[in-house]
Amino acid sequence: MATTLWKQLLLNAIDSNANLKHSSFFQLATVGSNGRPANRTVVFRGFEEGSDKIQINTDCRSRKIDDIRHCPFSEICWYFTSSWEQFRFNGRIEIIDGSNFDPDKVQKREKAWFASSLRSRAQYLGPSPGLPCINEESSKESSIDPTKGPVDAFCLLLLDPEQIDYLNLKSNKRLIFRSEQSDERGKCWLTEEINP
Amino acid sequence: MATTLWKQLLLNAIDSNANLKHSSFFQLATVGSNGRPANRTVVFRGFEEGSDKIQINTDCRSRKIDDIRHCPFSEICWYFTSSWEQFRFNGRIEIIDGSNFDPDKVQKREKAWFASSLRSRAQYLGPSPGLPCINEESSKESSIDPTKGPVDAFCLLLLDPEQIDYLNLKSNKRLIFRSEQSDERGKCWLTEEINP
Repeated sequence: MATTLWKQLLLNAIDSNANLKHSSFFQLATVGSNGRPANRTVVFRGFEEGSDKIQINTDCRSRKIDDIRHCPFSEICWYFTSSWEQFRFNGRIEIIDGSNFDPDKVQKREKAWFASSLRSRAQYLGPSPGLPCINEESSKESSIDPTKGPVDAFCLLLLDPEQIDYLNLKSNKRLIFRSEQSDERGKCWLTEEINP
Repeated sequence: MATTLWKQLLLNAIDSNANLKHSSFFQLATVGSNGRPANRTVVFRGFEEGSDKIQINTDCRSRKIDDIRHCPFSEICWYFTSSWEQFRFNGRIEIIDGSNFDPDKVQKREKAWFASSLRSRAQYLGPSPGLPCINEESSKESSIDPTKGPVDAFCLLLLDPEQIDYLNLKSNKRLIFRSEQSDERGKCWLTEEINP
């Protein structure tokens, strides 16, 4: 399968900004049950194998999970500070948590767990994010067994892009990629140049 | 008036990241009329004089204006790549465009216009953002008269923060600031430490 143009542009941007640790960070917008938008920084964890879906790890106890259960649509805004490129990914998010017993999904969640550092994994043993801080010793932090699979709080998110808005601030070019589902050829992408 | 803690933290972050051009960029999330979130990078244009409102310049013809007219709530996510601090500002946005004749607002919009560079101003004479690109010569770009006030497409946005979620990834501390309107003392802020 040939790599689509937007994916090639993204892979190039990731490559040309790779010297910056923060280049794998982007902002994920969701809509809360109160109808208001929410927006936070998360880490790019690669693409799902053999697909265009963007992987994000998160804590099941975080507010974004409530948001996504209420409204599964999301927009990622990913700005590359060195190459001056912005990618906006709009699409539906799938939540894969410990209550998912589909063997394929269990495996994806495990793979994402083992791909993250021990330090990242230890965070999921910490107290509930967003709750008032009670300064108890977080003795659990060192108790991650590196051979053990994901803990309950660990959750994998998969964003399936339907539309990508690409802006290059150096060339002042902007492209919109829209996905079309066709029964014969699967997903295909329509590209249009639009005004920046 | 004493500077509130969140504002002092923000001013410190702006100061300690000032060597990076992109440190004045943040991501603005809105909700579209289709109920889906949207998210894009915009530029911090300072605070409204004597207030906590965050200023953003934008093009009246951009999609975010339709979003804000439909749902005035927004969340800014501002990540500082050098100091590892994140600020999330949730609040209502006010649109100040050319149809606003309140003298105070006319003046604010003019001030924002003249505070931006000639190059920034020239963008508002370009073709409608987001529309298909017709490669006509944009001869208008050089026709900005530096003494003339804002063009029709120029719009000032003011975000009035109601809640600020501050996260410091170096100290692993997170604080929530919630505003409370009191008749006697005006706006005041409640601060709580929460789990990161």
